[in-house]
Amino acid sequence: MSEKRIYNFSAGPAVLPESVLKEAAEEMLNYQGCGMSVMEMSHRSKVFDGIIKEAEADLRELMNIPDNYKVLFLQGGASQQFAMIPMNLMKNHVADYIVTGQWAKKAWQEAAKYGKANKIASSEDQTFSHIPDCSDLPVSEDADYVYICENNTIYGTKFHTLPNTKGKLLISDVSSCFLSEPVDVSKYGLIYGGVQKNIGPAGMVIVIIREDLITEDVLPGTPTMLTYKTHSEAGSLYNTPNSYCIYICGKVFKWIKAMGGLEMMKAHNEKKAKVLYDFLDESQMFRGTVRPEDRSLMNVPFVTGNDELDAKFVKEAKAAGFENLKGHRSVGGMRASIYNAMPIEGVEALVVFMRDFEAQNA
Amino acid sequence: MSEKRIYNFSAGPAVLPESVLKEAAEEMLNYQGCGMSVMEMSHRSKVFDGIIKEAEADLRELMNIPDNYKVLFLQGGASQQFAMIPMNLMKNHVADYIVTGQWAKKAWQEAAKYGKANKIASSEDQTFSHIPDCSDLPVSEDADYVYICENNTIYGTKFHTLPNTKGKLLISDVSSCFLSEPVDVSKYGLIYGGVQKNIGPAGMVIVIIREDLITEDVLPGTPTMLTYKTHSEAGSLYNTPNSYCIYICGKVFKWIKAMGGLEMMKAHNEKKAKVLYDFLDESQMFRGTVRPEDRSLMNVPFVTGNDELDAKFVKEAKAAGFENLKGHRSVGGMRASIYNAMPIEGVEALVVFMRDFEAQNA
Repeated sequence: MSEKRIYNFSAGPAVLPESVLKEAAEEMLNYQGCGMSVMEMSHRSKVFDGIIKEAEADLRELMNIPDNYKVLFLQGGASQQFAMIPMNLMKNHVADYIVTGQWAKKAWQEAAKYGKANKIASSEDQTFSHIPDCSDLPVSEDADYVYICENNTIYGTKFHTLPNTKGKLLISDVSSCFLSEPVDVSKYGLIYGGVQKNIGPAGMVIVIIREDLITEDVLPGTPTMLTYKTHSEAGSLYNTPNSYCIYICGKVFKWIKAMGGLEMMKAHNEKKAKVLYDFLDESQMFRGTVRPEDRSLMNVPFVTGNDELDAKFVKEAKAAGFENLKGHRSVGGMRASIYNAMPIEGVEALVVFMRDFEAQNA
Repeated sequence: MSEKRIYNFSAGPAVLPESVLKEAAEEMLNYQGCGMSVMEMSHRSKVFDGIIKEAEADLRELMNIPDNYKVLFLQGGASQQFAMIPMNLMKNHVADYIVTGQWAKKAWQEAAKYGKANKIASSEDQTFSHIPDCSDLPVSEDADYVYICENNTIYGTKFHTLPNTKGKLLISDVSSCFLSEPVDVSKYGLIYGGVQKNIGPAGMVIVIIREDLITEDVLPGTPTMLTYKTHSEAGSLYNTPNSYCIYICGKVFKWIKAMGGLEMMKAHNEKKAKVLYDFLDESQMFRGTVRPEDRSLMNVPFVTGNDELDAKFVKEAKAAGFENLKGHRSVGGMRASIYNAMPIEGVEALVVFMRDFEAQNA
């Protein structure tokens, strides 16, 4: 089967380590001799308790998560966090948003349902092609938090320096850079991300939240299921979680550990991204759309400047086994998402293909 | 592998058809030659579009869902519906709840956050061991809906006759009887259920809702993600859905169709349940806990009346390959959940084991 696999540059759901998929296939009917699939297992069983606890422990080890932070495995995706965050944390009904892309914008718009959501910086006027200077922003005096989307999947930008929040709580959506490099969790009040890009199958979000932020004092009308305390007190088992997703994510955590952890993952990702960015910088046909100092290691949008040529490239690339290279409609052109599980061989092969395409279409 | 599989009587997540698991294992690295796993596939791709559309079409065919009902594949489980239902449907801020178990009670308690939630009938004073007479209940004149939990997983009861709602909308949680028998969808305003009992892996709820109930007129503060209109307009793809779960559910729908549809499934389930109930009715040691006319075809709680003997039974049954027979703590004793995918051989083997246990411990 595996020799027929293509190079999958999807922005998410996205490529997973082949070894993880192989293990999952092997264990599908009978997980470690227990006589059933993980899909068929009570979430209250001892076997599943082992799976979820080990997944959390491995994640804590990988990210070096301090003891005063809780790890929650929740449903609803990042989009549900857009409401859950203000419902739980907007105690003063004021929050500041840095709008660097479509997802930050959606989060900001959702927060406006629950209080005064201030857009304190944005790069929308330049199609979100850079990260604004966040060293001295007009942070609101009574802001409950400052919110960022740390890596912008659609636009291919990344905060390489965290904003100066002037003492306010930092909340970060790391969906598309989760576990791609080391992170100092203690700098954040809450970090969260959908797992379907760098960690596992779709249908789960991981929330890492400082314990003192988990309170009963939520906005009136907040559903029980949208209250962090509900899930924190129940160890993410208030109701049936996405148990199969937790199991696959646990395998990916083990895979990252075996790869050498987040320092090694970062080195690996930098090496991979350099192959593509170096080519984009020297090419006469293709160019990256992002200001170089704000480039993401995970999502690389690029264009030829000619829509017909872009379309031809995407079509021929697909035929050659490079899938999902079409760019998001708001940027156009192409986008290569090169998450943790994309091997460097995939990026190298893509660059060879791009070079040939350029020669043939010059 | 398969010969080592046990009989899994879990209340959920629960046993799935072995043929479905085998197919999923075979397709894990490469779905139908597309070169990637369904887990790795963009939810906006043509291949996934085919998967979700076919799943919906098969479900519509199985349940004979009228055209004026929408099918939504959502995250958050039944517990999230406990809030989503009143937030979307409690226009008059009044709703009537029939409390026949722990899940109906939780739904009723959650609804009280959003308006006047009346408990118009209950069987709690008798440990929910029966379904109350619902032929002439004091339905509120201004009730937005009447709510039931149609099959009570913990207590093993089932509404064999729907309540007389006196013209009010009926809302039903069918989590533990989903697709176990034919249903007249037109009798309901909204039917929903978590899929992790009778349909697929955990992490998704299917909502079948009458189109005219899907409006923008929701309670203030309702999150975008908790608004039915959001998901209805986007064909359940407003954000990334639990795509792997949709894929597995689709396979189970095909399996049910191959079994002959819901009429045949009902006949099969009745035959299976009769094997166990007949034994419980004749046994001198074991007895069912539910009033016979309200018995569920899916969840069968039973006791010996002696806690030590119950514990001994559960332990010895487990050793003999009958898993997850321990009853819920609120009923005690044992519970056999015998969902669609439990083969009749499993129930027959359990009864043989119970008969032997009774003989040896008489």
